[in-house]
Amino acid sequence: MTDAGGYANRIAKVDLTKRQVLYEEIDDKLARKYIGGRGLGVKYVFDNGTDVEPLSEANILCLMIGPLTGSDASLNCRLASVTKSPLTGTIVDSHSGGYFGSTLKWAGFDGLIFEGQSEKPLYAYIENEKLELRDASDLWGKGVFETTDTLRDRLGNVNVLSIGIAGENLVKFANIMNDAGRANGRGGTGAVMGFKKLKAVVVKAKMNRVKPKNRDLWAKARKEALDKVMTAPVTEPGEGGLSEHGTAVCVNEINERGSLPTRNSQFTMFDKAEDISGETMTDTILIDRPACDLCPVACKRLTEVKDGKWAYRGEGPEYETIWALGANCGNGDLKAIGYMNDLLNDLGMDTIEMGDVLAVAMEASQRDLLKDGIEWGDADKMVELIKKTAKREDVGWALAEGTLGAAKIFGNTGIAMAVKGMGIPAYDPRGIKGMGLGFATSNRGACHLRGYTPTYEVFGEDVPHAELMDRLAWQGKAELLKFLQDWFAFVDSLNVCVFSTFAWPTEVYAKLASAMTGWDISVEEMLRIGERIYNLERHYNNLCGFTAKDDQLPKRFLEEPPTEKPSKGSLCELDKMLEEYYKLRDWENGIVKEEKLKELEII
Amino acid sequence: MTDAGGYANRIAKVDLTKRQVLYEEIDDKLARKYIGGRGLGVKYVFDNGTDVEPLSEANILCLMIGPLTGSDASLNCRLASVTKSPLTGTIVDSHSGGYFGSTLKWAGFDGLIFEGQSEKPLYAYIENEKLELRDASDLWGKGVFETTDTLRDRLGNVNVLSIGIAGENLVKFANIMNDAGRANGRGGTGAVMGFKKLKAVVVKAKMNRVKPKNRDLWAKARKEALDKVMTAPVTEPGEGGLSEHGTAVCVNEINERGSLPTRNSQFTMFDKAEDISGETMTDTILIDRPACDLCPVACKRLTEVKDGKWAYRGEGPEYETIWALGANCGNGDLKAIGYMNDLLNDLGMDTIEMGDVLAVAMEASQRDLLKDGIEWGDADKMVELIKKTAKREDVGWALAEGTLGAAKIFGNTGIAMAVKGMGIPAYDPRGIKGMGLGFATSNRGACHLRGYTPTYEVFGEDVPHAELMDRLAWQGKAELLKFLQDWFAFVDSLNVCVFSTFAWPTEVYAKLASAMTGWDISVEEMLRIGERIYNLERHYNNLCGFTAKDDQLPKRFLEEPPTEKPSKGSLCELDKMLEEYYKLRDWENGIVKEEKLKELEII
Repeated sequence: MTDAGGYANRIAKVDLTKRQVLYEEIDDKLARKYIGGRGLGVKYVFDNGTDVEPLSEANILCLMIGPLTGSDASLNCRLASVTKSPLTGTIVDSHSGGYFGSTLKWAGFDGLIFEGQSEKPLYAYIENEKLELRDASDLWGKGVFETTDTLRDRLGNVNVLSIGIAGENLVKFANIMNDAGRANGRGGTGAVMGFKKLKAVVVKAKMNRVKPKNRDLWAKARKEALDKVMTAPVTEPGEGGLSEHGTAVCVNEINERGSLPTRNSQFTMFDKAEDISGETMTDTILIDRPACDLCPVACKRLTEVKDGKWAYRGEGPEYETIWALGANCGNGDLKAIGYMNDLLNDLGMDTIEMGDVLAVAMEASQRDLLKDGIEWGDADKMVELIKKTAKREDVGWALAEGTLGAAKIFGNTGIAMAVKGMGIPAYDPRGIKGMGLGFATSNRGACHLRGYTPTYEVFGEDVPHAELMDRLAWQGKAELLKFLQDWFAFVDSLNVCVFSTFAWPTEVYAKLASAMTGWDISVEEMLRIGERIYNLERHYNNLCGFTAKDDQLPKRFLEEPPTEKPSKGSLCELDKMLEEYYKLRDWENGIVKEEKLKELEII
Repeated sequence: MTDAGGYANRIAKVDLTKRQVLYEEIDDKLARKYIGGRGLGVKYVFDNGTDVEPLSEANILCLMIGPLTGSDASLNCRLASVTKSPLTGTIVDSHSGGYFGSTLKWAGFDGLIFEGQSEKPLYAYIENEKLELRDASDLWGKGVFETTDTLRDRLGNVNVLSIGIAGENLVKFANIMNDAGRANGRGGTGAVMGFKKLKAVVVKAKMNRVKPKNRDLWAKARKEALDKVMTAPVTEPGEGGLSEHGTAVCVNEINERGSLPTRNSQFTMFDKAEDISGETMTDTILIDRPACDLCPVACKRLTEVKDGKWAYRGEGPEYETIWALGANCGNGDLKAIGYMNDLLNDLGMDTIEMGDVLAVAMEASQRDLLKDGIEWGDADKMVELIKKTAKREDVGWALAEGTLGAAKIFGNTGIAMAVKGMGIPAYDPRGIKGMGLGFATSNRGACHLRGYTPTYEVFGEDVPHAELMDRLAWQGKAELLKFLQDWFAFVDSLNVCVFSTFAWPTEVYAKLASAMTGWDISVEEMLRIGERIYNLERHYNNLCGFTAKDDQLPKRFLEEPPTEKPSKGSLCELDKMLEEYYKLRDWENGIVKEEKLKELEII
């Protein structure tokens, strides 16, 4: 067995067509270039070729952790799923927390690569450094909750990744659920799993914390990191906004700044924001604050509605979900949102994309493009359409295509609040301009997590290493975003939770990575690794045909000035930011040049 | 009233939002540049702007005839519908024959332009140089046959253009049916009509043959034209293949040459070709040979199945339909094809696209991409899916998106035999190479009618002005196609039936056009006008983002050599032909250069 205490890594390559499993070591040079998690996953997907249909035998699905996963560092336990996205046609990585990642490490693996397609439903069982493929015929057709429970009943104390019926039905934004309550949410990685007929991945292992190569440095770095998490205004346990109210603390913050996309971004404020805010959640449906492995922040929520038609008990909802199914759809009923969130977890679908798709259906109805459609805020009908989407029933065939796909079907792409086919998250680019550039240039489509500019544009005063920038100015945002994108690519490869960036400056990551791996990784090398990963993703997309023309925003953000006060009259100056951004990236027409690929040692 | 005897033209501009009708004369200079029909329609659509969603108030629908329509020339009565296509996003023109065009001329119009969108269903009634908008609430939801019959019962001897429920439901390949049995088929012009809530256009007028400006020249030209139609091997009444067996005469001809796309182009010959051939149709279900206005060829079929589950009586099926719903779907039952054709006419959907979409569903089922799918040749299930498509029920939501749209939804664009989003017609580019270049460069997507190379590649010996070329060679096809595309653009603007090209060399069109208009139009000017129209269409598409990258063929035609003997081992050398073609067109990366636009007096 590979020494779990160092950074020598082991992956399983699983051919589902042939039902073969191969075990491989990861080359050290490759590991230093791409670190782990997102970085290595992207490299594997790239090496598999770009001319691949996402839903075909030729596509691969990588489930990857990073060098810190399973260690005793806080906020360490993230799991990356990397593949070619059936939603966007780009490369995609999505992440979840919880415990699965750490357990996978303890069971002897740093990554799993699934190739081919099984004829019959299977699940992968991992224990004692081995991966076994088992029949999952009895699980096919079951929801995530029942699948997870069944596997736990059968196998004991295990962690379970699984897809719901949405993944089975190839819904383009089906997700992979991690221990039922956490989601590798964006980009349809669950549909790839469904196509491969891989219902679940189960891992069993005893805790066996990864030992760092440089124990002294590790002890210091780990303490510094933990101290910062314990005291930073955003993350401080108990007191910090994330800890007290969860991610939903953003609802009021973003709404007050006229940046909460409302009714499919026709407005920038929601009159019922208070009703669906984190504060209201804390006062009403919140019953507990679960945490991921070794995380003192515990931003996760456990919520419950005891009676009535919205009765449920489950994890979430997160800020993005509350926005997507709330303000975005003109729905101010927090209990209904909680119920839908739980339903979506069971069906295995991305709550953000679902909210965007429902908003498209609502605007299509408003514009007379959809017969027997859906009114703004009609929660009962939302539930009906969510179920139809997962089952691909009736109009669900259209909704299952995602925000842009559905808008195309309804006949008006202008109502799709999407970039590269992925629906936007909960930040209006007219009110937070850096996010506009972020959505436009993110390698997986409209995404806030490739470089979270609100840390600087909104929460700057509460983040020790950040400075508050004018959210309505476009100047300086290109430089900020490039830095964040490179940094976050490294963070996602370590795999550390991005919420650590509210507490840790760049040095902390460099120290943790150096201590764990024994390599001397400077902040400069770290950012270069991040840049390498970002450019490799971009290069992948270029080879798939994506260029500057795809770095766009929905016209609404460029041409329709908001009338609500906080962002009144503001439009997103995307072109100006893009011009600066391309210069900083040294890209031509959005394309990574050969010299750049060489300079970054990608080729 | 404009003198119907000359070529001064009158159009009605109908604003459906405001319920306003304006009458305008067409400027003589403009008419000489674009002639009529397709050319003028394209110019109007271009002037309306390219940044227009096809299904939006901003799009316009032009119904245009040409200078010969309503005259006593044979094969004259075509009607062009021109708009931005909801299927492809390109400019599109589609055509039908029959009587509507002539009657429209006699009622005092050379074109109708519909703008905006009505709140309630309307139909347009045209008589005595006036157009009136009338309520069509009682017709909404009715099929084409009932709509046509109802309007005739109500209004007497009228010609009726109408959409079926497919157009109402915005099926992307809904067509406009012309007197119930003829179709403006390709590109979803019926969906545009449906979006506008325009159920029908009705015209009433007494015959009043258009008088030419130069009567002597006309008499000669008209006689020459008619003589050629009466004697050319393809068109000769009674004896010619088109006349005797209708367009379905192609089934055996094309199959024998290993060029009949079978089972979604997985094969190039169909073992049941004989069963669905024109000869078999003549011997079995044929009951009459109706004709368009003043056409001695009478290629139209009236067919009937008296008993059993396929019982129907109606116009068609054409060769393309027989192929699309027959060989293409592995279905060898001619009666079932006749029944489906009739059903599709009533629902108002393009039979070619429907066949391609069904073949996609069949291959998706074969590849396990579609649950509870459809087997090759399952005619009962085909009927079920046709109905679901028109109604947008269940998987019909996917099928209603057309060949490429459905393949995207099923998750594999490689199984879409489509170009620019439009499904291919009945010629395999591996067996008839010029058609491959034609599909790739046609401005409306995969189309055989922008330049029908089989005239030279297959039927050369039977066409007096043509020479037979080697169908399996790529050499010379670029030059042939460019010539045909320019010529056909003129033919479609005159508006004369393209089947005339089996009988008439270019001079005949120049003479007819000159005699009718009084202008001295040489063959050179004619081809320049055609080139102008073709380049304006291309320029429109360029402005919509279409470039060389969209001039592609499904990989199957480039990479999978047929195993059946007649075209065994042959692949379509598209790149070589494209290189020559772009040179001949003087396009860069598929884009019309500014100098070219100026040279052709487009700008």
